[in-house]
Amino acid sequence: MTQEQMTLDTADATIDVAALGDQLLGRWADIRKKSRALAGTEAVRGTPGLGMDDHRERVFGQLKVLVDSGAVHRAFPRHLGGEDNHGGSIASFEELVVADPSLQIKAGVQWGLFGCAVLHLGTQEHHDKWLPGIMSLEIPGAFAMTEIGHGSDVASIGTTATYDADTQEFVINTPFKAAWKEFLGNAGVHGKAAVVFAQLITRGVNHGVHAFYVDIRDENGFPPGIGGQDDGLKGGLNGIDNGRLHFTNVRIPRANLLNRYGSVTEDGTYSSPIHSPGRRFFTMLGTLVQGRVSLDGAATAASKVALQIAVTYANQRRQFNASSDTVEETLMDYQRHQRRLIPRLARTYAASFAHEELLAKFDGVFSGATETDEDRQDLETFAAALKSLSTWDALDTLQECREACGGSGFIAENRFTQLRADLDIYVTFEGDNNVLLQLVGKRLLTDYGQEFRDLNAGVLARYVVKHAENVALNRSGLRSVAQAVADTGSERKSANFFKDEANQRALLTDRVNAMVGEIADALRGVSTKDRAKSAAAFNSRQDQLIAAARAHGELLRWEAFTRALAETTDTGTRTVLTWLRDVFALTLIEENLGWYLMNGRLSMQRARTLSGYVNILLDRLRPHAQDLVDAFGYGPEHLRAAIANGGENERQDEALEYYRRLRASADAPVDEKVLIARAKAAKKAAHQGGKK
Amino acid sequence: MTQEQMTLDTADATIDVAALGDQLLGRWADIRKKSRALAGTEAVRGTPGLGMDDHRERVFGQLKVLVDSGAVHRAFPRHLGGEDNHGGSIASFEELVVADPSLQIKAGVQWGLFGCAVLHLGTQEHHDKWLPGIMSLEIPGAFAMTEIGHGSDVASIGTTATYDADTQEFVINTPFKAAWKEFLGNAGVHGKAAVVFAQLITRGVNHGVHAFYVDIRDENGFPPGIGGQDDGLKGGLNGIDNGRLHFTNVRIPRANLLNRYGSVTEDGTYSSPIHSPGRRFFTMLGTLVQGRVSLDGAATAASKVALQIAVTYANQRRQFNASSDTVEETLMDYQRHQRRLIPRLARTYAASFAHEELLAKFDGVFSGATETDEDRQDLETFAAALKSLSTWDALDTLQECREACGGSGFIAENRFTQLRADLDIYVTFEGDNNVLLQLVGKRLLTDYGQEFRDLNAGVLARYVVKHAENVALNRSGLRSVAQAVADTGSERKSANFFKDEANQRALLTDRVNAMVGEIADALRGVSTKDRAKSAAAFNSRQDQLIAAARAHGELLRWEAFTRALAETTDTGTRTVLTWLRDVFALTLIEENLGWYLMNGRLSMQRARTLSGYVNILLDRLRPHAQDLVDAFGYGPEHLRAAIANGGENERQDEALEYYRRLRASADAPVDEKVLIARAKAAKKAAHQGGKK
Repeated sequence: MTQEQMTLDTADATIDVAALGDQLLGRWADIRKKSRALAGTEAVRGTPGLGMDDHRERVFGQLKVLVDSGAVHRAFPRHLGGEDNHGGSIASFEELVVADPSLQIKAGVQWGLFGCAVLHLGTQEHHDKWLPGIMSLEIPGAFAMTEIGHGSDVASIGTTATYDADTQEFVINTPFKAAWKEFLGNAGVHGKAAVVFAQLITRGVNHGVHAFYVDIRDENGFPPGIGGQDDGLKGGLNGIDNGRLHFTNVRIPRANLLNRYGSVTEDGTYSSPIHSPGRRFFTMLGTLVQGRVSLDGAATAASKVALQIAVTYANQRRQFNASSDTVEETLMDYQRHQRRLIPRLARTYAASFAHEELLAKFDGVFSGATETDEDRQDLETFAAALKSLSTWDALDTLQECREACGGSGFIAENRFTQLRADLDIYVTFEGDNNVLLQLVGKRLLTDYGQEFRDLNAGVLARYVVKHAENVALNRSGLRSVAQAVADTGSERKSANFFKDEANQRALLTDRVNAMVGEIADALRGVSTKDRAKSAAAFNSRQDQLIAAARAHGELLRWEAFTRALAETTDTGTRTVLTWLRDVFALTLIEENLGWYLMNGRLSMQRARTLSGYVNILLDRLRPHAQDLVDAFGYGPEHLRAAIANGGENERQDEALEYYRRLRASADAPVDEKVLIARAKAAKKAAHQGGKK
Repeated sequence: MTQEQMTLDTADATIDVAALGDQLLGRWADIRKKSRALAGTEAVRGTPGLGMDDHRERVFGQLKVLVDSGAVHRAFPRHLGGEDNHGGSIASFEELVVADPSLQIKAGVQWGLFGCAVLHLGTQEHHDKWLPGIMSLEIPGAFAMTEIGHGSDVASIGTTATYDADTQEFVINTPFKAAWKEFLGNAGVHGKAAVVFAQLITRGVNHGVHAFYVDIRDENGFPPGIGGQDDGLKGGLNGIDNGRLHFTNVRIPRANLLNRYGSVTEDGTYSSPIHSPGRRFFTMLGTLVQGRVSLDGAATAASKVALQIAVTYANQRRQFNASSDTVEETLMDYQRHQRRLIPRLARTYAASFAHEELLAKFDGVFSGATETDEDRQDLETFAAALKSLSTWDALDTLQECREACGGSGFIAENRFTQLRADLDIYVTFEGDNNVLLQLVGKRLLTDYGQEFRDLNAGVLARYVVKHAENVALNRSGLRSVAQAVADTGSERKSANFFKDEANQRALLTDRVNAMVGEIADALRGVSTKDRAKSAAAFNSRQDQLIAAARAHGELLRWEAFTRALAETTDTGTRTVLTWLRDVFALTLIEENLGWYLMNGRLSMQRARTLSGYVNILLDRLRPHAQDLVDAFGYGPEHLRAAIANGGENERQDEALEYYRRLRASADAPVDEKVLIARAKAAKKAAHQGGKK
């Protein structure tokens, strides 16, 4: 069947829900299904309304259930009972969010942050000594990186680890209040140990941030020199005991330095396989990328749950009867409701396909299959971009779904509010989204610069001229005028333009390139010698740079969605998914329409047809909305929302039956409105009779 | 001083914080201050982390404190101990949100909804009989309007009140499950009575929805025929005992019909001062507009609290040191942070000034001073538009402020998360925001139609031609081309254009008019005879209509902000507020830039200067951000946020002092980076020395 035939055949396009479900489950489908099955059980799911203390104890108990189910050891070495399966481990872990985000994050603290810090920053000796206890939960632990004074800027933390060659110990110290470790899961109550990040100082030299294994609690609580404070109640994730820690000259053995990237000999000599302190720091922090990868997946899973509940309800719930006397409209038939839910559904599909690619990239790097410097950098950038977009999107989707279900959406048992409260912090932890996007933006700028690094001046000059010509052409609006001439009067031509994959790619790519180019051009003239001036110049473009990074992330999602279409074998499914991909692309272009117009990428005529065309696509997708959410594959044991279990339909049937019987009976009251209308009609008839 | 001089004098513009504070407090400043003082006391403020049951009891107890403080009787008649002060009552009530939104809404249920239903829908006899007990809280009551099956569409509720002339009673009945009353505050536990909305049926005729006073609980709980169910845990407002109620042929005296707008005589004859059932229904519902008015004020107050906390923190907190070796940047100095907080500050000012005008309008109508049909309609439209915008804005502002404070924003004691959780429901209760905006949109369409109702065909035809010409002129881009010619190369000219009040008004007004005109034109040809077709045509424009209503609401805010500028006497304050108003207007235009461009209202050249000019304004406003939030006037007893109490500054001073001393001492460690740089320099010097 040709592309054209496929597109024409829209009337009977149907989705193969099972096949689409399998496609969404992706490469680690079996592990994902196993984790989902576990997440749906009574033993690990959240209990709404538990007080903070009870919630913490329940989640801690649930961690043991995870251990017993073999759900959390996949990332660890085979010889210690793990599977060396990095992608699978994340796939399994992120599905836990549907049980209770507190469980997901507490597990993430224990095995993702604390455990994997020992795994990735430590060496064989550390693995053998501590990983078994970490894996079995014998040693609950904290990941002590963030301080009160420094979260995003980890390099500037204040905690010190000073080597004392006389005793062959490191002395961990918190020099001032702002250097207290802060927001650490497991630090409030359960943690027995911590991986503590501190400035490593030996022989009078500060070698920068390194990680140290420190015992923080025994049966009597904190040992001398260690103190802490419970962070208490939070906006969500109250199943986790976040807290603060501080150290007053706490001595630990030299061997407790997790020394994969930096060692200190007995006499205090420092050495590292990575010469540059800057690169060393980023390499150490790079091992933590899995947190971002898993948050991207978990946030996307939460969006799926929200949409599955809200679309199911919108397909049952009715309100107002504009088009008929007796039957009210289903919410999903309102254009505004379609506008609220379907573009978010499209975005969630894009996020899901993009996450699958991110997970593959992650697995490649962490398994060692594709582990060049460039791979690592790409992974970092990819994860930073996707984590930022999907965590913000989850909050937005959960909220819109909550509102789309009205007051019922606000009742705790319908899930939205607690999920949203828990996921709130996802947008600022494991890298604040704005800071992450700025990193993505800087990488884009660097890449932009590197394109020309090895070219000689002549080529560069030609490029600049060409680039400048393009800018001038776009800005003068000549390109859009040309479009206008081609389009005049034809909405169909315009629709054909917008649904063309190559055009979507060109529009989305062009925006990223042009924005980055504009920033690069603006910063090119600024001297980097005057630090304050260059910082000010950069700051004056910060907002634009973050916007460019967002646009880049959306482009990555579009590419992933488009690649997924190519892998969709069922024709009907591919047809519907193509409309959904088009909605994803075109609502992005709608959101940034000002940019496309003022930079001459779209003509006024074409732009004016865009919203109408999106509405047509929404209308076309509307009958498939239920299939599209059902393909997410979550069962009632995951949704656990009373409004999505069919009760609404039952109530409506009961009400309809009541009114049907009433109308058929003798004692049905007449509406006053009807009486008034009848009286008017009678008066008119009498008047006309009189005339005769 | 001329406008020009004022604008030039930007360097030393300062805000008179006290005077601006007074201006913001508005007409009911004294009452507002009294209510704030009460809201800051230990007795009425919220306690984070209370379980649901304890929270409910605490809030119920706090209602008694409000009674004892005389805080809740202002709207009631003088002869019963009230003040007949409608505007003042709302002003006082909405300030309670800073104590605990549960308290505000529980008070709103008791005295605003339940009490005012008796006041406005009942007559003298009802007032004398029940208002004293309602005012004193002897009779806690529920407002039983919404049903499981019908929230937004009140006219379709299923509960019936059938008059039985034999016993002179109304029989209240719930005919099916979907007609259970739902989400009623006070129904879960505390309510002893309820105003129940039901279809009034007498002598075989249904006269539509009326209100009835029903006793629902005595010392033994529900009497026979009444049942209920607790709604349990919600996403927020857990200090309120929402619940369901249902009635099985419950008999109440004829006199319990709240009969201001509809009476039934002993023999069952119905009469009403309002002949049209439709108008009668909307008049009865119209008395409930105060709920929307007060939510507008409360939501705006919550935004103020959030901004006062977040801006204070952003002025203290530092992170990263791009511009210097020793001093880190204050968050507020980052362009992105300014972009996040200052436009929301501008919007909150606009909302505050607009709310003050809404409150005056409300007071005029409810005091009887300005009470024409048009006044009532304007009030309804005004309240619907502002309530929708400000409640959504509060969620957005609370969230952005939470994120801007990072992890600290997520700790419960810093207020954002609980306020946001509580205010979540504000966007869908007392009228779902999307439904309210649709009502606003319909009113705009009606007004648009009425402009021409009395004109003869000739005039109308001329208008249509003229209108069409305008459309053509705009769409062909001729207007924007003209702008482009005038602007070429001058960013200053463009800035002058954007800061001109008349241009801002024209751009904002034009968008509303043009959007409404476009929808009206599209619907004009549709026959209203085929109900399904006409409903479908309307539905195809629903999203656009709601967008037009939003734009209308924003225009109302802009007008109110601009009028407030004219009343600002201090020159420095007016200068700064004018920039803030400009930011409000121009970020609105930025958000809708696509519309302005594709409809030829702005040239590409001019549009491209807009974001840069907004950034300049933000930079100019940055030093005034603290004054602008301080003028909101909330004290530490209202903010109650640890991060806004100066602790951050203290910690930073301690850390700075530590590093200063360390640098001055002999045993300061040297950074490895510095050593590497020194080594490089030495090598270079040796190399050059060798060359010599």
